[in-house]
Amino acid sequence: MYELLKTIDDPVALRQLERRQLAPLAEELRAFVLESVSRTGGHLSSNLGTVELTIALHYVFNTPEDRIVWDVGHQSYPHKILTGRREGMKTLRQFDGISGFPRRSESVYDTFGTAHSSTSISAALGMALGSKAQGKSNFSIAVIGDGAMTAGMVFEAMNNAGVYDDLPLIVILNDNDMSISPPVGALNRYLARLMSGQFYAAAKKGVERVLSVAPPVLELARKLEEHAKGLMVPATLFEEFGFNYIGPIDGHDLDSLIPTLQNIKHLKGPQFLHVVTRKGYGYKLAEADPVLYHGPGKFNPAEGIKPSTGGKKTYTQVFGDWLCDMAAKDGRLMGITPAMREGSGMVEFERRFPDRYFDVGIAEQHAVTFAGGLATEGMKPVVAIYSTFLQRAYDQLIHDIALQNLPVVFALDRAGLVGADGATHAGAYDIAYLRCIPNMVVMTPSDENECRQMLYTAFLQDGPAAVRYPRGAGIGAAIAQEMTAVPLGKGEIRRTSSAPKGRRVAIMAFGSMLAPALAAAEALDATVANMRFVKPIDAELVRRLADEHDYLVTVEEGCIMGGAGSACAESLLEDGVNRPILQLGLPDKFIDHGDPAQLLAMCGLNAAGITESIVARFKLTGVKPLEKTDGVTKLVA
Amino acid sequence: MYELLKTIDDPVALRQLERRQLAPLAEELRAFVLESVSRTGGHLSSNLGTVELTIALHYVFNTPEDRIVWDVGHQSYPHKILTGRREGMKTLRQFDGISGFPRRSESVYDTFGTAHSSTSISAALGMALGSKAQGKSNFSIAVIGDGAMTAGMVFEAMNNAGVYDDLPLIVILNDNDMSISPPVGALNRYLARLMSGQFYAAAKKGVERVLSVAPPVLELARKLEEHAKGLMVPATLFEEFGFNYIGPIDGHDLDSLIPTLQNIKHLKGPQFLHVVTRKGYGYKLAEADPVLYHGPGKFNPAEGIKPSTGGKKTYTQVFGDWLCDMAAKDGRLMGITPAMREGSGMVEFERRFPDRYFDVGIAEQHAVTFAGGLATEGMKPVVAIYSTFLQRAYDQLIHDIALQNLPVVFALDRAGLVGADGATHAGAYDIAYLRCIPNMVVMTPSDENECRQMLYTAFLQDGPAAVRYPRGAGIGAAIAQEMTAVPLGKGEIRRTSSAPKGRRVAIMAFGSMLAPALAAAEALDATVANMRFVKPIDAELVRRLADEHDYLVTVEEGCIMGGAGSACAESLLEDGVNRPILQLGLPDKFIDHGDPAQLLAMCGLNAAGITESIVARFKLTGVKPLEKTDGVTKLVA
Repeated sequence: MYELLKTIDDPVALRQLERRQLAPLAEELRAFVLESVSRTGGHLSSNLGTVELTIALHYVFNTPEDRIVWDVGHQSYPHKILTGRREGMKTLRQFDGISGFPRRSESVYDTFGTAHSSTSISAALGMALGSKAQGKSNFSIAVIGDGAMTAGMVFEAMNNAGVYDDLPLIVILNDNDMSISPPVGALNRYLARLMSGQFYAAAKKGVERVLSVAPPVLELARKLEEHAKGLMVPATLFEEFGFNYIGPIDGHDLDSLIPTLQNIKHLKGPQFLHVVTRKGYGYKLAEADPVLYHGPGKFNPAEGIKPSTGGKKTYTQVFGDWLCDMAAKDGRLMGITPAMREGSGMVEFERRFPDRYFDVGIAEQHAVTFAGGLATEGMKPVVAIYSTFLQRAYDQLIHDIALQNLPVVFALDRAGLVGADGATHAGAYDIAYLRCIPNMVVMTPSDENECRQMLYTAFLQDGPAAVRYPRGAGIGAAIAQEMTAVPLGKGEIRRTSSAPKGRRVAIMAFGSMLAPALAAAEALDATVANMRFVKPIDAELVRRLADEHDYLVTVEEGCIMGGAGSACAESLLEDGVNRPILQLGLPDKFIDHGDPAQLLAMCGLNAAGITESIVARFKLTGVKPLEKTDGVTKLVA
Repeated sequence: MYELLKTIDDPVALRQLERRQLAPLAEELRAFVLESVSRTGGHLSSNLGTVELTIALHYVFNTPEDRIVWDVGHQSYPHKILTGRREGMKTLRQFDGISGFPRRSESVYDTFGTAHSSTSISAALGMALGSKAQGKSNFSIAVIGDGAMTAGMVFEAMNNAGVYDDLPLIVILNDNDMSISPPVGALNRYLARLMSGQFYAAAKKGVERVLSVAPPVLELARKLEEHAKGLMVPATLFEEFGFNYIGPIDGHDLDSLIPTLQNIKHLKGPQFLHVVTRKGYGYKLAEADPVLYHGPGKFNPAEGIKPSTGGKKTYTQVFGDWLCDMAAKDGRLMGITPAMREGSGMVEFERRFPDRYFDVGIAEQHAVTFAGGLATEGMKPVVAIYSTFLQRAYDQLIHDIALQNLPVVFALDRAGLVGADGATHAGAYDIAYLRCIPNMVVMTPSDENECRQMLYTAFLQDGPAAVRYPRGAGIGAAIAQEMTAVPLGKGEIRRTSSAPKGRRVAIMAFGSMLAPALAAAEALDATVANMRFVKPIDAELVRRLADEHDYLVTVEEGCIMGGAGSACAESLLEDGVNRPILQLGLPDKFIDHGDPAQLLAMCGLNAAGITESIVARFKLTGVKPLEKTDGVTKLVA
């Protein structure tokens, strides 16, 4: 079992193998990836696709002196396994375990942390120029998928890189014809043409056909072919950016990969190597359905992934259902996703409303301004986007949408902590970065039905409105099919304290924190408000709660700094009212991956933690501590 | 004087002119632009360059039904003049006057507000698909400069647009070989090759040369040329994105422009027209120095711009001086600008340290991640960027820099209100959107010397640090050549109140607001702290001020919501201290263009306004109101 692989504790050991041993090593590595991911869950298809490429890179290049940057990084498991983290794979994406993405703190071979797409060429160019400034001549290598190539910063980086004629910079396009959602856009069509070899073949055929008219002129033929190669065969897109284009080559064939990479080491200037791989390669079930096997949970490799059995609806599904229902009601609705059809719950919407479905590729900036363009023509665009990815379109949201007060709905999925994906994907900042923007409406649904009704409310607005909801399932609330608008900027009291004056606590809860706040309130006999709106904040309700209580608490699944709690505080200060306020939320730290419940507990954001924080801050007595179901150490006091 | 022009109150009138009248109209329009801008100040070179193109577009297309989106929009003065705002030009960029950029609220001909670059194709694509959804067949036209083509979202938009084979979408590349700074990058080199006609000429020459070997085969020659046109001539970059490329044509020649635009109306699918213009065209001084005439103040057209005479140093100059001094001391310093060499004060740095100067083009996202790559190699990157443009790189700042705690200095120019450029360029949100990010250090210098010392302090940090400073000149503080680090997270008391208990006011001032706060404090006998740091906030100082005063005031040139004032409030709440706090700053509104002092006064952010707000909120008596030097109505109470 893993006879070769278990001898490879770092790439130095790999480089001591003979060439003929690499193919069996690849087999072992692929088997190890499959076994490992089936036990922990994680990304699968992409990692089965990069087995040979990873071996070849570490075999040919002198890592870590030569830098490899894995774009997105969800395809870096083979790299992790070959760079000393074979055993660590057992702890993948688990609390205190290794990350599902490259991390600088984890290994010197992880030269740049990734997770959001399309950063690799920029980072590698920085490394290449940083090395050059120190007189070093190591290679900097960005490995990027075709899906990630649609994001604008790739072109920004190539435009910048292409002018450095002597830089040892290599971009490897790992072309597997798939990001998470199926490929879209002109660039993908272009890559398909490159891959089919149509360009070169067509050019060559044209020359041959012409020559057949006048067969004897052989000298002419030779010259013409030279010209055709050097001059008239279309340069690829990448050459027009100043890169030398090589490929496409078979990314599962070590006999292509290794000599090609060895040759590249002798070329000067920015190189662009086009490698064709197949997601899920070597595991039939994943090859057949790479989307299903993109990021599975645990499964039995012999049986494959079983369809999940019912369970509570996720917020993503609630959004997907609403989107279809709303689209059926209103022909102006247009649904936009930056390459997250599955993740954002838009599969059914695309099926039913193909003409109103726009997958713009990994292109958040464009997605938002494009929505703005649609809105100016009277359409009602809904941009479905993860909280963390909206960071990519922050300027567009301010400059193109909010400033013009255009009616665009932002359906922000994965708001708050996201669990296994960790800090890179946490939707921790959206409340703070959205509420400071004029004209924005920002809502935080506390359950599934409220999510649906708030999406409807957002759709009715005459300006931009965001609904931010967490990853995964809600509390299991019944969902009213009928849509009813939530009164704008109005919260509601969900529990009223019967405690005596001097001991009255009011908790202002936002979104997902309503449920644990209600549980905490039972122990504390506290009042609880479901605030619903971060912006406009319900100033009247805040004021009333302040008037009728001695202690105020705000709680949100978002950063404390500048968050919803500060919206409450600002509103009170503006009214000239002083009350002790305890602000609970995410601390001023990046929170690593782990089980979501465990992470929330660590941040004090479950019922026990909320209770404990309130008791401690206000020195309340006689409160029976809630049972700690988690038993983890708290991160913040 | 302007005989033809004065008859054109809208494009309908323009379209009634005869073709032969357009050339004289262009002359009048150009003269009008020059005269007008020389009287008000504003953008000049770019507008002299678009005179003929604007006439041709409105002459050929059925505006406003056909939509024109002016990318950046600083070249839209001829468009404004021809669409009913000839008289309005007198009020350009002045308070209550017309904007220097297209604005939807100003005219139906301004289909999409612009100012930040590279949004036009996304917006036009949205318009085209929005029109199509309504069964309309009008054209959507994006006019974009070559400088703006380097920003990634252009490629995101083209990638998305290129697949709509039947959409009446037209992209007009206004190629004047210049954005504000000189052109950079591979794309620019590529455009230069296209423009020189080298591609087509070379391909044609190659064919001819080959043919001269076997002169008699004329039939072959004809076939070959056909093939050369249809098959072997290299497709342009833009064709690879699915656009039909036309050009380059002379953008000052109406006899080229008008027939070409007329022909384009009959083509199907996305069209890309390459128009070559010259910035400053028709005004010799501007042609000779388009950078100087990019955005001048008032001047005499007969004499040209006079060199400005001394005056106080701008913060931009303070930064530029520091950058050179620091670079001379430390070889690891690398200076990065996204196409803002002049605006960011880096001309001298480039001259002295060309190998450590990186103009990456209009590419903020790449600029930041590129800096991250440099930092991983031990370099010390300094990213000079306007506050409003850092919004473009928000995700990169979080995901690539802060999360990895990489030592990158952000020199944020134009923080706060910017005057004539208006809401699109206001640096109103940076405090709120930066301080919620873990690992960030955020500083607000109150004068020129502090700016220099804070830049030095930022440079010494082991993680990301931002120094945000306003547009224009400071208070004229003496600048110490020697660099001394400011103690991290420590503010200082600059004035101490001698008022009795019950009447003691403390003002916590950030950055540019220190000066008016000190003036207000004279009237109020208030304590004033120069807070210096937004993050880490000086919690100890805040606490001390709270303990020793009855009323607290925070004041910043940034949005109140989530801003530095809320950092103070959060810090007190965390300490369990309640005090009335008055938070002063920018209101929750987009602030239009106008004179900076006037705008600040309108927001209550001058000495008189601060005094007045404090007196009113805390009902202080016996305070002599400060003389109002401005006399404008206040925007907020």
